[in-house]
Parts: sequence; C-alpha cells; structure tokens
Amino acid sequence: MPELRKDPVVGRWVIVATERGKRPSDFAPQPIETPDPAKNPFAEGNEHMTPPEIFAFRDPKSKPNGPNWQVRVVPNKFPALRIEGDIDKEGQGIYDKMNGIGAHEVIIETPNPNLQLEQQPVDAIGRVIETYKIRMTDLLRDSRFRYILVFKNFGRQAGATIGHPHSQLIATPVTPKRLKEKLVGAMEYYAYKDRSIFEDILKQEIKEGSRLVYENAGFVAYCPFASRFPFEVTLTPRRQAAYFQDIHPDEILLLADALKVTLQKLAKALNQPQYNFIVNTAPARYAHHGFWSTIDQDFRWHIEILPRLMLIAGFEVGTGFYINPTTPEEAAKYLREIPV
Amino acid sequence: MPELRKDPVVGRWVIVATERGKRPSDFAPQPIETPDPAKNPFAEGNEHMTPPEIFAFRDPKSKPNGPNWQVRVVPNKFPALRIEGDIDKEGQGIYDKMNGIGAHEVIIETPNPNLQLEQQPVDAIGRVIETYKIRMTDLLRDSRFRYILVFKNFGRQAGATIGHPHSQLIATPVTPKRLKEKLVGAMEYYAYKDRSIFEDILKQEIKEGSRLVYENAGFVAYCPFASRFPFEVTLTPRRQAAYFQDIHPDEILLLADALKVTLQKLAKALNQPQYNFIVNTAPARYAHHGFWSTIDQDFRWHIEILPRLMLIAGFEVGTGFYINPTTPEEAAKYLREIPV
Repeated sequence: MPELRKDPVVGRWVIVATERGKRPSDFAPQPIETPDPAKNPFAEGNEHMTPPEIFAFRDPKSKPNGPNWQVRVVPNKFPALRIEGDIDKEGQGIYDKMNGIGAHEVIIETPNPNLQLEQQPVDAIGRVIETYKIRMTDLLRDSRFRYILVFKNFGRQAGATIGHPHSQLIATPVTPKRLKEKLVGAMEYYAYKDRSIFEDILKQEIKEGSRLVYENAGFVAYCPFASRFPFEVTLTPRRQAAYFQDIHPDEILLLADALKVTLQKLAKALNQPQYNFIVNTAPARYAHHGFWSTIDQDFRWHIEILPRLMLIAGFEVGTGFYINPTTPEEAAKYLREIPV
Repeated sequence: MPELRKDPVVGRWVIVATERGKRPSDFAPQPIETPDPAKNPFAEGNEHMTPPEIFAFRDPKSKPNGPNWQVRVVPNKFPALRIEGDIDKEGQGIYDKMNGIGAHEVIIETPNPNLQLEQQPVDAIGRVIETYKIRMTDLLRDSRFRYILVFKNFGRQAGATIGHPHSQLIATPVTPKRLKEKLVGAMEYYAYKDRSIFEDILKQEIKEGSRLVYENAGFVAYCPFASRFPFEVTLTPRRQAAYFQDIHPDEILLLADALKVTLQKLAKALNQPQYNFIVNTAPARYAHHGFWSTIDQDFRWHIEILPRLMLIAGFEVGTGFYINPTTPEEAAKYLREIPV
C-alpha cells in the first residue's frame, strides 16, 4: 500500500510508493561533463574571463584576478538580479512589484575543473563553507537584502551550465516562498508546543534510526520522513542556530565532514548523480525583529540535498503534490551501508 | 532592470528578466513521439491492453472494452494510489501519515494516436471536458476523497510516458499544497476586501490588456502577472464558480474553444511545445463546509497551462523562487498576434 506522508514543517502531503520501491540501479546514470580548458572561465589561468573577483582564498603572495587561489568568488556574468539601484516598491492595481535588485555571485570551489566537492579534503570543503559564511555576512550589511540564498547545482539536469565545480549565491530583497513557509511552520509549532520542531525532528530521527544516513559530533544527515525525491537528504546541526552565518569554526569542519561523507555516499550509491543543494537559513534579522519573534528558538538552519534522479514534471510544480518512488527508509539504508 | 513580481493569490515572488527577454525562437523544439501502434495500449483495437474501462463516450451499438469510442477512461495500470481500503490516519511521533487511498485514472482523449487535443474539433474537445466533469462528479460521491486532480502531461519532458493523447485524474484524500495556498489566499483577500481576488485579477487583465491572450463569451486566457514560466497561460471563467464540475453545458463549449485556441497558439508560436495543464478547483464540499466558509464567493476554478520550455532545476523546487526569462507581456503579445 502506498503511503501519504505529511511534512511536519510546511504541511505538504507526499505520496510515498512503498511497494515496488525504486532502487539505486533503477535510476539511469547521467554523464558528467568535463569543461573545455580553453573555454572554462572558472579555470586557473582564465581569471580574466570572469568579472573581477569579490573575494578569494589565495596564496599570500598572489594577486587578485591572477592564479594561485583555492576558492574564488566572482559576480555571475549573467546575473538574475542587479546590484545597483533602488528597490522602488510599487503597486500596479492589485499587483505588487519592485526592481530586481540583488547580488548574484559564483563561488568557484577549486581551481581543479574535475575535483568534485566531495573529493576535496575536509579542510578544503571547510574553506568553501567559510566562503559562504563570509559572503553572507558581508552582503547582509546591505539593508536592501532580506535573504541570502546559497545553493549548488551539480550537473546539467540540475541546472548547471558550466561543468567546473561551483556554488552560487543570490541576495534578494524578498524571502523565498518555501523558506517563508518553513519559518511560519516552525513559529506556529513553537507557539503551540514551546519546543523547536527541528529539535523534535532530530530527536525522533536519532531515536528511530531508520532514516539516518550519517552523524558526527555536530551534524545529523537523514532522509526526511516526507521526502519528495528519492534519496533526498537533510543535514541539520545539533546546536540550535537560526542563522547559517553564525556557524562556529569547529562546526565548519564538522559540516564539511558531514557534507563530504553524505555526497560521497550519494555519488557511490547512485553513480555520481546530478543534484542540487540548498542552504536554508533565517532571513536578515531586521526582517523579523520585534519582541514577539521566537526565531532564535524556533527555526534552525539546515541544508537540503536533492538528487536529480527523475524528471520534475510541471504537474508536481503546479500542484505541490509529489510522488516519491523510493521510501526514505530504503534510501537511508542504502546510504548508511555504503562504505566511504 | 529585472523585476520582482508578486503573485497576488499565493504571495510568491518571481524574478522576471525584462532586459534580454527570451523569444519563442530561443527555446529549442522538443521532438514529439509517435507511439508504436502494436504497443500502444490507448489505441483503438488495443482495448484489452488496459484495465477494464470505467467510462466511455462510444457508439450506441458498441460494447465496453471494444472499439468505436470517442473518449475512454481507464484505471492507470501503475496507479500512484490504491482504490481499495481504509485511509487509517495515523501518527508516528511528530509525523502524520495515512494509507495511500485514491483513484488514478487515464482519460484517453481520442482513438487517433496522432491527433493532439487542440487539433480536435471544438465539440470533441468539449466531450473530453465533459468526461472530466463526469468523472469528478462520480468520484466525489466517495467520501474518502477530498480533492480530484485533473491534469495533462504532453511530451516526455512534461512527464508523459505514452505518446497517445491523454489526460489524467488523481482522486486524493488530501488537498494538494499549492491549491490549499490558493484557497487561503483567496479567502483572506475576500475577508479583507469583500471581493473575489479572481474577479479583481480578471477585471485588471481585461482593462490593461497587455497580458491577454484570448477571450470569448465565457473565458479569458492571459499570461499571469507573476508567471513562473515563459509562456505560462491561465484560463479563468467569467462566471463566479468555485467548482469545476458545476460547469454549464454551454460553458463546456466555450472552454473547449478557449483551450483549443490557446493550445493552438502555443503550438504555433513555440513549435508544439511540451506542456502540462492543471485544473484548479475547490476541494470536496464536506472538506470546508460550515457557516464561515466564503469559498463559493472567494475562490474560482481555473486552468493553468505550463509550457515546458526550460529545465525545472531543483533550486526552484527547493526554494520556491523562480526566474522567468520572458515577461508575460511579451509572451502574451506573441500569442495574441499569432493567427490560428
């Protein structure tokens, strides 16, 4: 019998097909492209092919926009939003609009075009995470921005147009809808129970164990109860913290370890699948200050990893109604048992 | 300057890139498959290849599960939900689940495997729409079902696995999340303004005219102000009605005409694009009865047509944050001006 399962934070019902669950081998592998070195704007030596860098971890003696860097942040050459200008909120009859002000940056994770994130050593992954933190903190000084969206598209099906390993960041003057739903869900749960829903989920996942993928001293990786996609994994910190950018230096390395192990397991189980990951964090503090806000207690930042094993049909986007052919329990079991 | 636009019903912000808008010719055409006649379970003569039919428009002298039909409804051979059993709602710690009870039916729109919906005459399209109404009305007699989802996937990228023209129907014991958001948005607007948001949108669209695609006596087709996808079109009835299945016989033909013209325009402008359409209607009456419900005034059923011209990246699904490279005004202008 298939099951209908409800996401406890946002209230979405998902059909989980439990009878003939799809196994890792049921998903066709997707080819990973190797970028052409001469045309790869993210390669070392091609720094002139990107707009001037915003930030980099680079050798002390090296110069900006030259080689000898480890992580490099540049503006997206085709940004979805523009950095200059005023927001100019405006009504148009019943409609609301504003100027598309924002930042759109690319975080080049390594000079090596073929070294995937999970193949880097833990401290190098930590440097990428620290870059996220540094850029978020910097951009949040700009009071026009309400939310900093950090995400990674790996593979063409997942939306990446350049094969060289990179993540992206979009600073927006609005809070993305799905994040807002999570904030509201977490706040309402806290108002009702006086407990954080994220803490309750973590406790139940650790106690049940059937959906756990990996744990270390700082983080728990699990397949969510109402997973929309096969082999979806969430990474949640054990410590209550609403804002990703408040991550401690020791937590950065623990997150790097959890991310490395989880992505390695996915790569091994599913033959290097294309995926997206998304950092879910609280919006800028000024967006919800006030004496009534419990956000520091009720919301917890977390990372969602969504492997792209199936087509996303417009039906699912149009209705918000998902059919997942693999139970999270089966997916977690596969991932737990794969040695890395 | 790109624009951020807010969907007035559900409150979603969308980035609309206005500078270098994508034109119809910028989207690569996708091949449409012709099903192999011998293996096509929806072809006339192959009726034995489907489960027994639930309903059909067929010649008076013909027999069920034989040839000589115009529209045929059969259970989906690989249903996402099961028709037999009890719902058995159950908690599991903080999680909620229920049995995957429901119906999953296929509406075969024509015996001709190569005759697309918009290529049929208006009265034949009307027969397909009447089939939706008949099946919805029938299934809503089952008090286990809260919502009847009618949709069409056209093309493999849009999720169709069989090339023969067909729509689908899923009866579920829960209301899909996106529909619930629309119901809440419409209810809150009505509570605040004492007007229907759908009526207000329609009035503004007709008055502004820039996003209109087609109008007849019963229906208005327009590209929504905060379109998530290029060439997205919404069809809304002029008459206030929350429930699709309350459609009048004369409205069925008007809807058939509006659907035919809109789909023909899309096919011509975009070289027969793959698409999804979704009927948005109110949930079963018992799901929201009570003296406080204003649903008959505040909500209006409508059809969304979502061409699949671009990849849906997990990023967009994960965040609810969309980037649309074509303004709805440009899209509507193209579609308005294309003669059909």
